[in-house]
Order: sequence, then C-alpha cells, then structure tokens
Amino acid sequence: MPLIANSLKGLNEMEGKNVFVIGAGSTKFGELWELGIRELISIAAANAAKSAGVGLNDVDSVFVANCFSGIVNSQLNINSICAEELGVANCVCVGGGDSSGAHAILQAANSVMSGKSRIAMAIGVEKTSDLSMSDIVGAVSCLADHEYEAYTGATLASLYGMITQKHMEKYGTTEAQIASVSVKSHSNAVNNEFAQFRFNVDADSVMKSPVVASPVRVLGSAAACDGCCAIIMCSGEAARKRRKKARLIGYGTGNDVVALHGREDITSFRALKDASRLALQDAGIGIQDISFAEVYDPFSIAEIISIEDLGISKAGEGGKFIENGFADIGGKCPINPSGGLKGCGHAFAANGVRQAMEAFIQLNGDAGARQVKNAKCALASCMSGTGSDAVVNIFSNE
Amino acid sequence: MPLIANSLKGLNEMEGKNVFVIGAGSTKFGELWELGIRELISIAAANAAKSAGVGLNDVDSVFVANCFSGIVNSQLNINSICAEELGVANCVCVGGGDSSGAHAILQAANSVMSGKSRIAMAIGVEKTSDLSMSDIVGAVSCLADHEYEAYTGATLASLYGMITQKHMEKYGTTEAQIASVSVKSHSNAVNNEFAQFRFNVDADSVMKSPVVASPVRVLGSAAACDGCCAIIMCSGEAARKRRKKARLIGYGTGNDVVALHGREDITSFRALKDASRLALQDAGIGIQDISFAEVYDPFSIAEIISIEDLGISKAGEGGKFIENGFADIGGKCPINPSGGLKGCGHAFAANGVRQAMEAFIQLNGDAGARQVKNAKCALASCMSGTGSDAVVNIFSNE
Repeated sequence: MPLIANSLKGLNEMEGKNVFVIGAGSTKFGELWELGIRELISIAAANAAKSAGVGLNDVDSVFVANCFSGIVNSQLNINSICAEELGVANCVCVGGGDSSGAHAILQAANSVMSGKSRIAMAIGVEKTSDLSMSDIVGAVSCLADHEYEAYTGATLASLYGMITQKHMEKYGTTEAQIASVSVKSHSNAVNNEFAQFRFNVDADSVMKSPVVASPVRVLGSAAACDGCCAIIMCSGEAARKRRKKARLIGYGTGNDVVALHGREDITSFRALKDASRLALQDAGIGIQDISFAEVYDPFSIAEIISIEDLGISKAGEGGKFIENGFADIGGKCPINPSGGLKGCGHAFAANGVRQAMEAFIQLNGDAGARQVKNAKCALASCMSGTGSDAVVNIFSNE
Repeated sequence: MPLIANSLKGLNEMEGKNVFVIGAGSTKFGELWELGIRELISIAAANAAKSAGVGLNDVDSVFVANCFSGIVNSQLNINSICAEELGVANCVCVGGGDSSGAHAILQAANSVMSGKSRIAMAIGVEKTSDLSMSDIVGAVSCLADHEYEAYTGATLASLYGMITQKHMEKYGTTEAQIASVSVKSHSNAVNNEFAQFRFNVDADSVMKSPVVASPVRVLGSAAACDGCCAIIMCSGEAARKRRKKARLIGYGTGNDVVALHGREDITSFRALKDASRLALQDAGIGIQDISFAEVYDPFSIAEIISIEDLGISKAGEGGKFIENGFADIGGKCPINPSGGLKGCGHAFAANGVRQAMEAFIQLNGDAGARQVKNAKCALASCMSGTGSDAVVNIFSNE
C-alpha cells in the first residue's frame, strides 16, 4: 500500500500555538560504565531543569524516548523509572526506533499546545554498553525489517553498505568524500564537551580503517554509546520573559517502507524528503533560510544523502559539498556542528533530543568554539534504521 | 524521591476540548499462529476504520502501543510497520509497559485536542506466541524492576503471589473469593467473540489448579496471548452526526515506585488510586456514577484490589464483592464484562485499547448477551507490571 502524504496540521495553522525550548541538559556521551539508566536520566533531567531555571516539580509531564531498554537493560517501564527518579507522575514512553528522541519532542510540544502541560520535558536515554558488541549488532538490527532483512543476516552496517555502494555507482561519490564526513565530525566534536570522540582524524586514517561492510569502514560508522539528553518546553506565554530560548517553528514527519527492497530508490530517503518538505512549509521558510543543520549520520553516507534530500545540495553532490568545506562551521551551511552521531557517539533514542539541545545552545550563542556565526534558524533531522521513519524539527531564535 | 501529584490540566479544564471514540475493531485474542504482527495490525485497524465508517486514508495519525516487539519479534520500528501496513505517514509508538494501550489513547486524544489531528487512531498490538513459555516469563519480568526484582529471580507471578499473600493476611481474603474472579471472567468471556477462553470454569477447578507462585494458581493467572485492538477518535464537532460514539469525559495517570520493596503498602495500588481520583475529578463524577468498569487483572488479586482502590468496595472487601455476585453483569457494578485479561487473554499493550473498545461497544448497546443494562458511563483502568504506572480513562454515551 502506498504511503500517503502527511495531512497533519502544522504548527502555524494552529493559532497562538507557540512552543519554546527554554532549557537543555545532558550527560556526557560515551561508555559510561559507572552510570546506569536511572543515573543517566537523573543527571540529564537535573541539568535541563537547571538550564531552564525550573524545578523538576514544575514539570507537568515527561516524554521519554528509549530504543533498547527492553533488549539491553531488561526494563520495559522506562516511563515508570523516570517517574521514580524525577518525581513526576506523568511520564510516557514515546518512540520509533532511533528517531524516538525527535518524536518525544513532538509529543511534548503537542502536550503544551493542547494546554495539557504547562511545562513538558522531552528526554532521550540509551544505555547500550550493557551489551557485548555482538549482542548490540543484533539489537541494532531490530531497527531494520526483521522478517526480510535482519532475519537473513543483514545488519545496519551491511544495509548502509548497499546504500553507499549504490550512491557511489550512481553519482560517483568518492571514498575521499565519504571520509571527509568523519574528518569534519571529529573536528567539531573536539569542541563539544558532551561528545565521546574529542579528537581529530585525518582522511587517510579513515580510508585505511578496517572495512565493516564494503564500502563502509569503521571510522565511517558511528559507535553505539550511552547517553541521555533532556529539553524543557513551554508555551510562548510562559517563555516570554526568558532570555534563553528557541522557538519550535515547524515540524514534519515522514515514513517509508522498512525494508530497502521495497523502495524505488535507495540513494535518497523518501521519509526524510517528506518530513523536511512539511517542516519547511510549516515554518514558512526555505532551506536557504536555515543557519545550520543537525542530521542523522549513523554511517557517513546518511549525512551525505541527508544534505541532498534536505535540498542543501543538489542530488548526488552531498559528498562534494562536505569535501569542499561547505558543511564546516563557517561554511555555506554547517552540518552537525555538534559532531553528529559520529563525533558525539550514537546514543540512539537520545540523538533527537541532543540535536534539539545543539539548536538551543547555538541559537542562544552559547556554543563557544563550535559556534555557528549569526545562527538564527536550526534544522534537526532524525531517522530510524535505514530511513523508515523521519522527523524534522526546525527551531528559531526569533 | 516522593512522587508528586499529577498536575496536568484535565479534559474539563480545557474549553471545548471534546474527544470521542467513533469506532473500534479487533482481532480475536489468542494463540494466533497464522498471523504475524503486520497482519494483526492490518486486521484490527481495518475493523476499526470500518466500524467508524472512515477510510484509513482519513486517519491523520496513529498512536501504537506495543510492549514486546523488540524482545519477542526483534522489531523496534512498530510505528514504521504501522505506516507501511496502514498507509498513514504519522505513526508513533507510545508506551509504558502493559498500560501502553491506555497511554496511546491519551496521546491520540491529545493530538485531537491540540487540533493537530482531525482523526486519530490508538492501536495496541502484541505478538507473544513467537516466544517459548520460559522466554515469555523472562520477557514479562521486564515489567518489574529489573535491578531489584527480576534480576534476583522474581517473576510477575511471584510478585503478585506476595501481594496476594499479604492481602489474605491483612483482610482475610479467601481462596474461594480469589477463585470467584476467574469464574466470573470466564463466564463473561463466553459471550465475547474476541475472547480467547470462551468456556466456563468452576471455583473448585480454579482452587485445584496447579500453583504457580503460592498462592497464585494457573487458573488465577491471565495467559499471555496475541492480539490487536484499535479505536478511532475525533473531536466533538466531527462526532456530532454520528450515531455510534462514546465521549472520553475524564482521564488520569499515576505512578508508584517500580519495585514492591519501595512501597508503603502492597495491598493497594497507589498509582491506580491517584489515576482514578484524578480521572473522576476530571469527569466531574463519583465512582457511584459509573455503570461498569474494565480493570487490569493479570492475576486475580489485581482485580480485587482494583475494585477497592477505585472505591467500588471498601478496602479489603473486593473479594467479597465479587463472591457476592456484585461484580457480575447485572450486579451492583459489573467488573470486566468483556472477560478481562483472564477471559480475553492477556495481550499486554493491546489491553488498554481493548478496554476502550468494550466501553464503546457497551455504551452503544451492542454487547449482546454480555450487555450491561442502561450502560451510560464506563471506567477503564490499566496498570503496568505490579502497578508502577496506571492510566484511568472514563467514557460516557451522554
């Protein structure tokens, strides 16, 4: 059955329905052996509340995103764990694979817009280091189509290997261009205090790193990690007097069939195209109006294709865009100034919230050495698996 | 940290925010060997759409509840699976253990209230028969506290065994009273076309059935099963001309610490008490105003305590209430006219939606041989695990 177009009303169709981010907090991302899922939640939530200048008892509802707690941590009540740790009696899990964090933001925004919550928290948490490396590959494969892909032995890396191969064949994307994604991400992550990989890599090292699933290499793959990130949201009225804030000015969601074999073209993400078109339309802006973008980069090709699908470059020219430095901080359109999944570490359901935190930090001019100059409008795009689901959120400081 | 009271605005505080159920559909519940999770979703959604007289392409957004797809079906993108099967490009997973279905209803209602969706679907799906019996016990234990309960070997059955034991000691609840829960549930399920166990059991058989975790017996435990249930929701304006409908007139959520050892009293569910107090307050009614209740009964004691916590009987008299026939269809306050989890089968995340379907059917006078006479107002209460989380929804046909 063909997927229908998104027919939801956008933010701007809803009179007076302004929603703002007024605070953001995080744990460090990485292999956090000393912290369990409860501690991760507590730390990020406390940091977010502090950032917003509110108490946790001011929070009316919590929307928590998590991918793997059932499989990895044998815990299916993450919303109850949140309630217990944070003392908030309205916690609900929200999800959709590794775009769960971005979904949690939408539901938190919706709760504010409906008038149900005065202050809502979106929080994304992941604790993957409780699994061995072979087990985590199996867990991550649950983000693909189990019946048609994972069951036959395909992993996320091998599926992205096929996507990469096809993109190289179709557009002539080069290994050097693919390597430039990791070089840029690591370079940005150096200046991000929350990032796992705060060191530079050069293109040669990336291109000589071991192959995971040809042509995908280790240094072109984001590593699964632990991390938790939270943002605090409220209505425009409540945000009026706040100095630090970012307005959610548009959003969109999109879907595609889960298995790659069902898609017309695997060198583009239809779900992302749909989601970004709707989000930009909702915000009433064009892609040229955004100051920077945080995109989904579990493997380098995903960032390259995202640049193309968002319309930041033409189709097939995403690799060149990065290689030419246009995606650098200071370039035409900085991509993943935070370091992205590659530099920060890939904390699955936490990623979408981390992207929104980067938007909040950048739009308030607080990003220090990785600050995007005159950042006024930020686009955050998140996907699940190989792009079965996409969410695009657009934030502004105006 | 103590849990704070729910401070969300209720439905009735939000001017003109009427939300209605206008259709409901289900698969049969049971061991559905021939149906996968995709088929379950397709069948229930199609039945719900048919019941509402809408097309699936009229549905703006889908809120899908599922507990075990990651663990049991190795599939974490259930929202994308919904998008693929139903052709709706706005699908998000919503959850909180086995109360997920009730949470999905709240988020669907919220989406309608915010004006974001004109027509929203809440759907709960579970496919547990893909696991062996020993594996499902492990999976279900993820609904307890992993670190303090499941990790030490406690299962849901053993935790409910402790609760049952304590209730018997404190209040003198008898084995015969506990058995009367199953007798009633099976008797009601006989007349429910969707139920798994459509046969009568007598009290003697229940009391002689094997012990699972003393004093919990096999015939006092709901069996894990497969099933999917969906409801269609819209605004009051859109529902005005419809003949078949049920209005969501109040809701409440509550939380408690996850592990039993952290609670003051295990013979009562604090989360449920909080949720029902808030829901009744929201609806502006007293418990005496409800025509019947669908409650959470994974083990018989949960139904007994629910009757007490909801205020249908005094504390300690829930068992007597059922034994005296007051909970029968035709009794003072019918409980689980559908057959409950015991009679219908326990399809975890689907339960909350199934309860709302029963409310829709009963309030429109369509329940046939199990019809509650003059049913005007229905309360549905759902919990997760041993009551770490509770959601109460109240529906009316007026």
